[in-house]
Amino acid sequence: MAQQDPEERIELTSETRDLLEENDLRPLWEVEKTMGNVYDDLQPDIWKWADIKETIDNVEEDMPIEELPPGFQRRVAVPINTGMENAISNTIYLGVQTVSPGETAPSHRHGANALRFTIDGHEDMKTVVAGEEFPMENNDLITTPQWEWHDHVNDSDETAMWLDVLDLPLVLDSLNSSNVFENHELERQPVTKTQGYWDSQFGQARPADESKDDGIPGPFEGIRDPTPPHRFSWEETVRTLRQRADNNTPDPYDGYSMAYVNPTNGQPPLFPTMSFRAQLLQEATETHFHNATEVYFVIEGEGATHVGDETLEWSQWDIFVVPPNELHSHEPDGEEAILLGMTDRPVFEAFNFYAESAPSE
Amino acid sequence: MAQQDPEERIELTSETRDLLEENDLRPLWEVEKTMGNVYDDLQPDIWKWADIKETIDNVEEDMPIEELPPGFQRRVAVPINTGMENAISNTIYLGVQTVSPGETAPSHRHGANALRFTIDGHEDMKTVVAGEEFPMENNDLITTPQWEWHDHVNDSDETAMWLDVLDLPLVLDSLNSSNVFENHELERQPVTKTQGYWDSQFGQARPADESKDDGIPGPFEGIRDPTPPHRFSWEETVRTLRQRADNNTPDPYDGYSMAYVNPTNGQPPLFPTMSFRAQLLQEATETHFHNATEVYFVIEGEGATHVGDETLEWSQWDIFVVPPNELHSHEPDGEEAILLGMTDRPVFEAFNFYAESAPSE
Amino acid sequence: MAQQDPEERIELTSETRDLLEENDLRPLWEVEKTMGNVYDDLQPDIWKWADIKETIDNVEEDMPIEELPPGFQRRVAVPINTGMENAISNTIYLGVQTVSPGETAPSHRHGANALRFTIDGHEDMKTVVAGEEFPMENNDLITTPQWEWHDHVNDSDETAMWLDVLDLPLVLDSLNSSNVFENHELERQPVTKTQGYWDSQFGQARPADESKDDGIPGPFEGIRDPTPPHRFSWEETVRTLRQRADNNTPDPYDGYSMAYVNPTNGQPPLFPTMSFRAQLLQEATETHFHNATEVYFVIEGEGATHVGDETLEWSQWDIFVVPPNELHSHEPDGEEAILLGMTDRPVFEAFNFYAESAPSE
Amino acid sequence: MAQQDPEERIELTSETRDLLEENDLRPLWEVEKTMGNVYDDLQPDIWKWADIKETIDNVEEDMPIEELPPGFQRRVAVPINTGMENAISNTIYLGVQTVSPGETAPSHRHGANALRFTIDGHEDMKTVVAGEEFPMENNDLITTPQWEWHDHVNDSDETAMWLDVLDLPLVLDSLNSSNVFENHELERQPVTKTQGYWDSQFGQARPADESKDDGIPGPFEGIRDPTPPHRFSWEETVRTLRQRADNNTPDPYDGYSMAYVNPTNGQPPLFPTMSFRAQLLQEATETHFHNATEVYFVIEGEGATHVGDETLEWSQWDIFVVPPNELHSHEPDGEEAILLGMTDRPVFEAFNFYAESAPSE
Ligand SMILES: [Fe+2]
Ligand SMILES: [Fe+2]
Ligand SMILES: [Fe+2]
Ligand SMILES: [Fe+2]
Repeated sequence: MAQQDPEERIELTSETRDLLEENDLRPLWEVEKTMGNVYDDLQPDIWKWADIKETIDNVEEDMPIEELPPGFQRRVAVPINTGMENAISNTIYLGVQTVSPGETAPSHRHGANALRFTIDGHEDMKTVVAGEEFPMENNDLITTPQWEWHDHVNDSDETAMWLDVLDLPLVLDSLNSSNVFENHELERQPVTKTQGYWDSQFGQARPADESKDDGIPGPFEGIRDPTPPHRFSWEETVRTLRQRADNNTPDPYDGYSMAYVNPTNGQPPLFPTMSFRAQLLQEATETHFHNATEVYFVIEGEGATHVGDETLEWSQWDIFVVPPNELHSHEPDGEEAILLGMTDRPVFEAFNFYAESAPSE
Repeated sequence: MAQQDPEERIELTSETRDLLEENDLRPLWEVEKTMGNVYDDLQPDIWKWADIKETIDNVEEDMPIEELPPGFQRRVAVPINTGMENAISNTIYLGVQTVSPGETAPSHRHGANALRFTIDGHEDMKTVVAGEEFPMENNDLITTPQWEWHDHVNDSDETAMWLDVLDLPLVLDSLNSSNVFENHELERQPVTKTQGYWDSQFGQARPADESKDDGIPGPFEGIRDPTPPHRFSWEETVRTLRQRADNNTPDPYDGYSMAYVNPTNGQPPLFPTMSFRAQLLQEATETHFHNATEVYFVIEGEGATHVGDETLEWSQWDIFVVPPNELHSHEPDGEEAILLGMTDRPVFEAFNFYAESAPSE
Repeated sequence: MAQQDPEERIELTSETRDLLEENDLRPLWEVEKTMGNVYDDLQPDIWKWADIKETIDNVEEDMPIEELPPGFQRRVAVPINTGMENAISNTIYLGVQTVSPGETAPSHRHGANALRFTIDGHEDMKTVVAGEEFPMENNDLITTPQWEWHDHVNDSDETAMWLDVLDLPLVLDSLNSSNVFENHELERQPVTKTQGYWDSQFGQARPADESKDDGIPGPFEGIRDPTPPHRFSWEETVRTLRQRADNNTPDPYDGYSMAYVNPTNGQPPLFPTMSFRAQLLQEATETHFHNATEVYFVIEGEGATHVGDETLEWSQWDIFVVPPNELHSHEPDGEEAILLGMTDRPVFEAFNFYAESAPSE
Repeated sequence: MAQQDPEERIELTSETRDLLEENDLRPLWEVEKTMGNVYDDLQPDIWKWADIKETIDNVEEDMPIEELPPGFQRRVAVPINTGMENAISNTIYLGVQTVSPGETAPSHRHGANALRFTIDGHEDMKTVVAGEEFPMENNDLITTPQWEWHDHVNDSDETAMWLDVLDLPLVLDSLNSSNVFENHELERQPVTKTQGYWDSQFGQARPADESKDDGIPGPFEGIRDPTPPHRFSWEETVRTLRQRADNNTPDPYDGYSMAYVNPTNGQPPLFPTMSFRAQLLQEATETHFHNATEVYFVIEGEGATHVGDETLEWSQWDIFVVPPNELHSHEPDGEEAILLGMTDRPVFEAFNFYAESAPSE
């Protein structure tokens, strides 16, 4: 319907018009033309790390966390896509956050799902989730699932940096504005679990004790397995990538591609709304398109991604976005590159709405 | 986050501002204030049948279907909620459609899910779906699932009327503008199945033949069981309601309430995006609230629904909406009433985001 | 392992032998030769209706139900397969039961799943399950699931006959002798539901009331959707078969074949241990084999089933069995025939153990 | 039914008897008395490690693997339960296998599921499964799933010992004698995967490549997620146990108890037929009973298990069995003990037949 060119207004008598208006009614043919307030001209775009870094350094100088008003005490630079006013995409929000030595990003929780992907970490830089301290070392991915308390504590002597990735635009724009948010009464939540606890209980063995509680926390209900707090150490993730490359052929569109799983069920997606892949590219991929949006972070290496007629040239720690329904392919420079691929594909799959295709010859 | 009052703009140096702007970046605390272009002040509202009918009669006089431009050949009056510009809610679209004797609403298909609930039908008024003619008798509910061809053929000598219910606002506003639409090359698709075929194959027995194809039609993929074409005859639906009332106690919030199932798996929701209930009210219900939106159509009887401080007084064939997060309860007048309850709750459940509660004392 | 020809006893020193014996130990190679006390030479076999009927009439004369000892008050003729001592197969038990006018087969319940397929019924011949009277008309199939009270009450003036089908051999031989059995304190359980209740609540709509209880009754737990009490009326079953034949091509091995579904999830198998199909044969089927056992009852028509080198010639109401791993095909005489096909295939599928193949050329 | 005391044979006329016999029919009341050829008097029993070891050492002296006939080239001591002739239980088979330095237990595959739990291992003692070498170090658990080639290669200079655990009695006695077995043409299958491959691809990330093949191998079909080849290193297993003990309260019946998961879905059971738990006991457990059978291997520590009126006193590497429906509890001596718990509970759960209870007061 929306694909059709707008038609001229169809003539109605004024008596009919009045009745429509008076009764808060409109004919379908007019309604269809005005539907669609999502940003439907999402553009391919790239944010270079040097630019992000320069900006963030300035922000850091201007604004110590403790001077920010309560509830906004996070220092985050947010890539805003051309033509949008709030995020990099209609579904996935991504920001670059820094925490200086000695600082704490205070404890809170919210309905939106979130994760941190560590850009520049340290074993004494910790995200505390659900009572456990998770160290943030380089390239570690740490979940802070829906409605779990989380705070970020930098006990190291270096500034730490990471990606925040949330499904905020989906939650705030689409789901009847349903996010809920709460600050913890303490800046740092109490640490009640030994380190390694959450990972161990959803690893290669599971509590056989029936009294275990692994339900969805908070006021929420749904049909998906909830995601537990979890640290995907880069050491283990990169090992799975290398094993893939050593024993298999690459996926034509994504290279050697491993999807982060929800540890509860051993399957992607990591969250009901977003899926994440570590992708090892050794050669150029084939071209395809899909109605899901992809956001990428460059973990290692250099290369280019072709999107429609544009070419996004990337190197380490750059961020770029591939809009829905655009033809795209990746081309690593030199030996190889590793990307973190992020996609809202699970949103489409939740409604049997995902579509993907290679270009017709 | 959105719940918090907007804060004054936090002071940054102009150098930092310039860098943010130049690099398409913004700090999180500003982004959060501008997020949320969904209509978040959805109001309780009611459309009286007499008003709808008078309007639609005038539309019918003005505008024969065949004079409408191709692709818009449907005569539909669409309730528009206060403060919105396109629909009764952010997720569920509802329209009242009429087809005059001898007319055909031409065959097409689209990505959005749809159903028809017959207000004034006839055994010779037929919706044709996936090669089978489904008669539309009073209060029958007929699915025209995602990407199935469908047309409406009035071979009776009376004007027929029904509700169209689709997940268009969700699809068009939220899912990256992903609806797709196609007109059939014929006004009426060929009838290739005997009448009763689709219902029979997803009833109390299923094809044991492994060559059966019950996949999601069209270009789409996902994780939910697809909904087959199906006619829920009112005769059978009302019998389940009566059996419920004769053998059970009512649900405190919804009365005797039977959810239409997806025949493929015998479970609600009928579609991955919308659920439908036939609700028999014999006494006033208790008050609760939830983040899902509810749209109601009055099948029989009279009464009132209390929403927040407002009271919506309804009688047969009225349409009303209960916005998310508003306290509400139903109160039938006289002996009993039957409502068709429509909800976007499955959208929330797909992401573990549904929340429901009774008011705290 | 068992497939290998037995080997001579391998020589061990007597000292070793003594130690094995003394410690209740045996070497693997000896153990393997003695494993397998299941009846592994199940033969193709047929029971002609005339023979069954003559026998049963004599039993009926000899033995009024009320003279049978408590707990055995059922008049049932049980086909015993050659080489077995207790049933027609290693998994599925089948008996032919009669109840005379005025008689009641007293109420009880057990862990094994059961169903009745009516051979000669009447609207006043009723199976009472879980508080509801289900009329037994010709060819109706009525479930009496695990641990539900059930009794059979003949209020008509004709003797009624039906098939009892249970998973008794599986339960008693395999599952650590786990069946449990209980007699009701009354001969007839109280009727607490209106007629049609159970079918209506698991039909095309489901209780939306969250207080509903559809759990597995009794002391049992498991991972499958429990089967509700249900009457599959022949009228509806045969309509699905006719629709199948009018709109599709037949399955090469089973003809037009509709599987009875578990109404809870709309999918076969009807029970976790046994699946049932109504099969309409219009022409000879192709030959295949599988490790599941098939038991057949001839609902209508005449024909033959070829099993290995044997041919079983059948006509109405005959019962026959196709052993596991035997090549077989069906060949209806004249126009068409309808079979009730019963299989233990779900037992194999529960352990990823089902195997099926056409003969290699 | 089987629970009732046998009744005297009910008198039938000889004419009826003859007819029953002639037509291969029997009355239900006689059939019920003869059903049940499973070993229904399974006894609690224990095999002391010293006895097993002495026996096995003698076997090893007598019988080098290469002198065993093809197809039986494994040196295994099999605990036989009192009153049975082939195994420790009706469902789970367990044997103690040794391989001397330089020996290979030749490659084969079968329909039954199997695992090895290493008693005395070495990094150069390897089980090769599906093309990958899995080192067998102390207390490692290695799966050799249904129909995967596997061989055991001792390249170390010490004799290796482990537990073989299979679902052979279930497969051979119950499932229509359905096991299938095949020897590899080579003594050692070719190693085609790098070490660590299988574990890495079913760990915290999964191949996102849709061309991946993780189907059930071989000729089999079913409804369960197949189990991949996997090594559960003891290092990781014991860490999950310690985390459990440090952060939770114990299960009343099983102590701190972690179930090995099927890596494909992150959930127990490890196989569709058998589940395995690592259980850390720090104090006496409460008494309960269930219809599943439990087999135990003592990994560490000393203690006793009370079964009915008997007490089984155990220390390291002993094997004992708790029969179905017997009251039992565990009581560690001294500080703590660790047991490997093995149960056929999944067989019961596959049919909604599991029952468990604490004794009524
Ligand atoms: Fe892509
Ligand atoms: Fe409500
Ligand atoms: Fe067959
Ligand atoms: Fe136990």
